[in-house]
Amino acid sequence: MSYEVIKSVRANPPLIHCITNYVTVNDVANMVLAVGGSPVMADDIHEVEEITSVCSGLVINMGTLNERTIDSMLLAGKRANELGHVVVLDPVGVGASAFRKRTAARLLEEIRFSVIRGNISEIKTLAEGIGTVKGVDADPSDAVTEENLEQSEILVKSFSKRLKAVVAITGAIDLVADTDSVSVIRNGHPMMARVTGTGCMLDAVIAVYCAANPGYIKKSVEAAVVAEGLCGEIAYQKVIKKKSGTSSFKTYFIDAMSCLDDTQLGRGARIEIR
Amino acid sequence: MSYEVIKSVRANPPLIHCITNYVTVNDVANMVLAVGGSPVMADDIHEVEEITSVCSGLVINMGTLNERTIDSMLLAGKRANELGHVVVLDPVGVGASAFRKRTAARLLEEIRFSVIRGNISEIKTLAEGIGTVKGVDADPSDAVTEENLEQSEILVKSFSKRLKAVVAITGAIDLVADTDSVSVIRNGHPMMARVTGTGCMLDAVIAVYCAANPGYIKKSVEAAVVAEGLCGEIAYQKVIKKKSGTSSFKTYFIDAMSCLDDTQLGRGARIEIR
Amino acid sequence: MSYEVIKSVRANPPLIHCITNYVTVNDVANMVLAVGGSPVMADDIHEVEEITSVCSGLVINMGTLNERTIDSMLLAGKRANELGHVVVLDPVGVGASAFRKRTAARLLEEIRFSVIRGNISEIKTLAEGIGTVKGVDADPSDAVTEENLEQSEILVKSFSKRLKAVVAITGAIDLVADTDSVSVIRNGHPMMARVTGTGCMLDAVIAVYCAANPGYIKKSVEAAVVAEGLCGEIAYQKVIKKKSGTSSFKTYFIDAMSCLDDTQLGRGARIEIR
Repeated sequence: MSYEVIKSVRANPPLIHCITNYVTVNDVANMVLAVGGSPVMADDIHEVEEITSVCSGLVINMGTLNERTIDSMLLAGKRANELGHVVVLDPVGVGASAFRKRTAARLLEEIRFSVIRGNISEIKTLAEGIGTVKGVDADPSDAVTEENLEQSEILVKSFSKRLKAVVAITGAIDLVADTDSVSVIRNGHPMMARVTGTGCMLDAVIAVYCAANPGYIKKSVEAAVVAEGLCGEIAYQKVIKKKSGTSSFKTYFIDAMSCLDDTQLGRGARIEIR
Repeated sequence: MSYEVIKSVRANPPLIHCITNYVTVNDVANMVLAVGGSPVMADDIHEVEEITSVCSGLVINMGTLNERTIDSMLLAGKRANELGHVVVLDPVGVGASAFRKRTAARLLEEIRFSVIRGNISEIKTLAEGIGTVKGVDADPSDAVTEENLEQSEILVKSFSKRLKAVVAITGAIDLVADTDSVSVIRNGHPMMARVTGTGCMLDAVIAVYCAANPGYIKKSVEAAVVAEGLCGEIAYQKVIKKKSGTSSFKTYFIDAMSCLDDTQLGRGARIEIR
Repeated sequence: MSYEVIKSVRANPPLIHCITNYVTVNDVANMVLAVGGSPVMADDIHEVEEITSVCSGLVINMGTLNERTIDSMLLAGKRANELGHVVVLDPVGVGASAFRKRTAARLLEEIRFSVIRGNISEIKTLAEGIGTVKGVDADPSDAVTEENLEQSEILVKSFSKRLKAVVAITGAIDLVADTDSVSVIRNGHPMMARVTGTGCMLDAVIAVYCAANPGYIKKSVEAAVVAEGLCGEIAYQKVIKKKSGTSSFKTYFIDAMSCLDDTQLGRGARIEIR
């Protein structure tokens, strides 16, 4: 399947509208381009509906959430819903403030998301209101491990059912769920957490893959998660070989995504569907 | 001529005020520094006039246009006009929303621009209101080709005459026009479109070169367009040699600009003045 | 001492809240991660107090100062003061506009800073209101040199005494002062001024080191200044060896910071305490 996901992007490069944070926005735009899409970053309330109308996917990322763009997120999301576009939510650091919790609740109420992606603490906060908080990172005490895997699967599946969305929890072990099944993905490398933006970039890859394969949302999300994990592994090998550091890691990571082909993706995937 | 353009920058490094988007702003600042200028990014209405006064060039880039900074653009532009500074406009994605069209029209009405640079769809929208829209990228159906080159030359020349500004259309083939002549530049590489910001960075290089050579605006714009195209070619060669990808391409591209000397620029230029 | 500074970061990775500019914010976040901390970029007035409460250090950087975030800076700063957190001020380009001068004065009046870091022109403006202005860069005529070193030491020491803060002036020669002594640091390389953000990144390293060593503010600031200077030297050597340019320099610089160990830091330091 992964094979077809990438083929569709090449056949019909999607235009992705991102309302995102100002920390990782450049990497996100470059990642959209790297995987074959075309990015439009626009967040002014006077144009978001018009902009999203010419796109086929929308990413709403709460990274540097601010009063000015919340209404833009709502307007763009509703318009994208009307047009049947793919809409991805990244509830960055949702447990870190009442402002974020309130905003995420409102977004979930007024917009129908195709995909929600976050770390385990963020998804727990959305699902149960109990994720512990360590800024915008997942709390280590929340982490998905081989020991609590079954429990996490139940959480992600029931949340997916409630929201009628594909839900992805990413971390050392990644989970992608729809109402029917959960996929467990074991690609990736810890160095991915030593640069900012791998999560935000994943949102964008998810949007590109899904927008090009609107009938296969869960499979597209899986392919995106596998792709990033795999490229994290490739980038780490290069860091070791070249004796470089975290900044080169980020460069190698995007490089690898820009060169990734179907065969690599198929061969490298460590995915288990349960 | 190109030779003198770079020499003047070294002799008298210009300070460039940029009111630009938050997507590519870091690359733009680094590009200003790479080519020997000094960047100031400031967009608050309380200070833009004062900031632009100590600079010698101003870039107004509509990338992530928002209500908060439009008045800042107008104030800075008018002050720069009073002081006789070089002012560059990049009407990013002007065809993508009524908000952008309205704002661009107002900027063109109230500010006298030295240089306007955009892709073919953006310039067509400004010139004729008929550019087709594909987000912030040029629509392939608009593209300047060897076949429609003459037609595009007429467009750019007449728009230049109307605006009393040097107009640059960049893409696979680049055109730089003033009221007298059009230069056709065939430097560059398609990979430049696989990273975000090469256009925004070009705005900044244009501002640096023009601010250091205020009597030679068209020649400075040509030199900037040739320089970026040439460095795109150099960067692509390095990507092939090192088997890297799009993120490394961006690094190599800025690297090449930071090392570019007069001899390289003179030898590599593929420019035809018609 | 430097040794213990880095050891404490590893033992207890601090979470750092940054209210900073949109030009270098990505590099700042990556630098926090590179040296072992965890960054949170958040500037909305509705959440800054809550966000800063879960962190142990706060950076206030005036880079792209705007009306929207000044109240956020004040609220976050006061809350951080109540909680006894480390608070770092970077008065970027304070001499460049009345708006910046006014804001800096208000920040200094209402917030107690642990550390103030700037270039010589910025610190002169704060201390005496007489720094000359060249945008956001130090004016060459202000530069700390071997000739005016004693004079600069008197300035920085008396300013430190008045503000009850550790004050760092960075440039070709760096000075770090508290009320008792001034350290002169001669690490670094001129290429650090050919990329944007080395100052902003230093603010973040200072915050990480200080937050992990709250009883040793001056020594932590010294270690941060030495670390960046040393990594600037390492990065420059790599640029020469690899025949690359300024963009690679920035990558090598963050790489070196992410790999820096105690032994390197101790051996490479060129510091003189007077």
